Amino acid sequence: MKKIAIFPGDGIGPEIVDAARLVLDAVDHAAGLNLQCTDGLVGGAALDAADDPLPEASLQLAMAADAVILGAVGGPRWDDLPPAKRPEQGLLRLRKNLDLFANLRPAQIFPQLLSASPLRPELVRDVDILVVRELTGDIYFGQPRAAEVLDGKRRAYNTMVYDEDEIRRIAHVAFKAAQGRRKQLCSVDKANVLETTRLWREVVTELAAEYPDVHLSHMYVDNAAMQLIRAPSQFDVLLTGNMFGDILSDEASQLTGSIGMLPSASLGEGRGMYEPIHGSAPDIAGQDKANPLATILSVAMMLRHSLGNEPWAQRVEMAVQKVLDEGLRTADIAAAGEAVIGTRAMGHAVVKALQL
Amino acid sequence: MKKIAIFPGDGIGPEIVDAARLVLDAVDHAAGLNLQCTDGLVGGAALDAADDPLPEASLQLAMAADAVILGAVGGPRWDDLPPAKRPEQGLLRLRKNLDLFANLRPAQIFPQLLSASPLRPELVRDVDILVVRELTGDIYFGQPRAAEVLDGKRRAYNTMVYDEDEIRRIAHVAFKAAQGRRKQLCSVDKANVLETTRLWREVVTELAAEYPDVHLSHMYVDNAAMQLIRAPSQFDVLLTGNMFGDILSDEASQLTGSIGMLPSASLGEGRGMYEPIHGSAPDIAGQDKANPLATILSVAMMLRHSLGNEPWAQRVEMAVQKVLDEGLRTADIAAAGEAVIGTRAMGHAVVKALQL
Ligand SMILES: [Mg+2]
Ligand SMILES: [Mg+2]
Repeated sequence: MKKIAIFPGDGIGPEIVDAARLVLDAVDHAAGLNLQCTDGLVGGAALDAADDPLPEASLQLAMAADAVILGAVGGPRWDDLPPAKRPEQGLLRLRKNLDLFANLRPAQIFPQLLSASPLRPELVRDVDILVVRELTGDIYFGQPRAAEVLDGKRRAYNTMVYDEDEIRRIAHVAFKAAQGRRKQLCSVDKANVLETTRLWREVVTELAAEYPDVHLSHMYVDNAAMQLIRAPSQFDVLLTGNMFGDILSDEASQLTGSIGMLPSASLGEGRGMYEPIHGSAPDIAGQDKANPLATILSVAMMLRHSLGNEPWAQRVEMAVQKVLDEGLRTADIAAAGEAVIGTRAMGHAVVKALQL
Repeated sequence: MKKIAIFPGDGIGPEIVDAARLVLDAVDHAAGLNLQCTDGLVGGAALDAADDPLPEASLQLAMAADAVILGAVGGPRWDDLPPAKRPEQGLLRLRKNLDLFANLRPAQIFPQLLSASPLRPELVRDVDILVVRELTGDIYFGQPRAAEVLDGKRRAYNTMVYDEDEIRRIAHVAFKAAQGRRKQLCSVDKANVLETTRLWREVVTELAAEYPDVHLSHMYVDNAAMQLIRAPSQFDVLLTGNMFGDILSDEASQLTGSIGMLPSASLGEGRGMYEPIHGSAPDIAGQDKANPLATILSVAMMLRHSLGNEPWAQRVEMAVQKVLDEGLRTADIAAAGEAVIGTRAMGHAVVKALQL
């Protein structure tokens, strides 16, 4: 029996999570997974209920779970609160407490939605990239960091820092992910300028011997930013530090033109959190308009990475392809004039497409 | 009388600089600029002649000049030399000694070459971006920096750092550039996470009062990396620190699909260096195949920024548009089956198009 903690969150979060739950329940039943799912509060919903974006009960629920599914957090209602009381803090504290050091961000083109890409179709047709981003180190967390006044002059600094253990554990995740895919790993750095990323390249290169079936290459971050536009289908798995990954994973996701389709996983040692990359879209919340497919694909990632069930992960992914093939579209992925369906109907359609 | 130092450099450098020289000489004569141009050695050429990528004579020549024109440096012949003897060191030392703190990188779509862009034509038709990148500070130069072994564990770090003076002087360059363009300035940072870029945003915002005709906005770097693909024509001038600018200026240039067309300027207080963004292309060196238009457009930038001659800068830029309109193409920008002309012929064509 595996324990799943579910945090619907704010805005469209509850709707997309409910649609994904339909799929998860159907898979649970058909595959005999015997999942124990429990809901919890995070973000604005938790602030409203307990004046804390991550109440102790929610943290305990997540810590006791094998996997966490998250909808989305935040919204204008909580925008004026002090930093520690922002809904996003709930998410950040969850990531930190679960020690989720590996962020997996697929950027995959759905052939049915090819026309949504800002790139020419012939360039993106075969794009299927997985960005593996380190999530707990680098300049976003490095010490020392400060803003100060020195001789009457304002000055601020941050520290980019990695040690070999941090690099090694994220590199292992990337090598293993590449083994389950097309076996091409491209590690991103700025080794020609930054000592930190020179160590990054060194450690990643050392690990290559343990993965003789994976082809490892290295690319400077500025060149990677170009190549993602020039020839994105050259990439399989992209391995990056926290900051470069922040930039490149967002750039890569934009290649698809359909942010509403993209899932993510954040993995720690033996635990994972799964969520769509899009936000809480308060403007359409509660209207059954949101696209639940990114959340449903996050469930597929959970089946793959936390439940070790690759066959059912692929069945869910194929079911999503099938509903797209059938022409089913929520508003965000519909072309002009195309018929649209609601959040809940899309969830049911995916369940049906599973053909259980 | 203005002094121009010309460093042809390596590979295709001498050819493209010779073609640009035709244009510069023609403008000099027609506009009565009375320029004093002197050639110098840098890069591999200087290593061959004087065992130093930036001999003292070259440095003195550059220091005494009002503007420097550079072709390109580097090539396989010098690849095995120790770091201090690499051709690129000549360029880096030149930038450092001239205190060139502002890098201007236009990313402009030439309508005649629209089909070269990886993006859909309707998205890039109106793209005309100027990236203003700080060039002498930030994490690329910040201290302390080191790779070390701590308790038997390898570790490395770098320091991102800016003071308000450094931010202010580059921001002034960007505000002024925006005044001469469409008056839209977007400053890029990661102010939600990094203290250094929070100071960046603070100082840039303070300066806005001095430029009431410029509309200032701010964008996080990861969002900027997305927006450059999603809707690049929203940008006029993009202001960035050194590292973010390294990434975003390369990404922006890729939007055009024609690297061989893009010039750059690196400005200090009262001095500027002008060079194409492309490399020395040793594979086609000496064959009259290289595209000199990026170098010719660098001459236009020199007329604008170092010689204060906006009318002639525009005349050169219009002459380049005219040769493209006439269908003249070097190999790198020719579509399949299109006739191509050589480096020298392209230089002469631009001179002719100036209609002096
Ligand atoms: Mg990001
Ligand atoms: Mg660069």
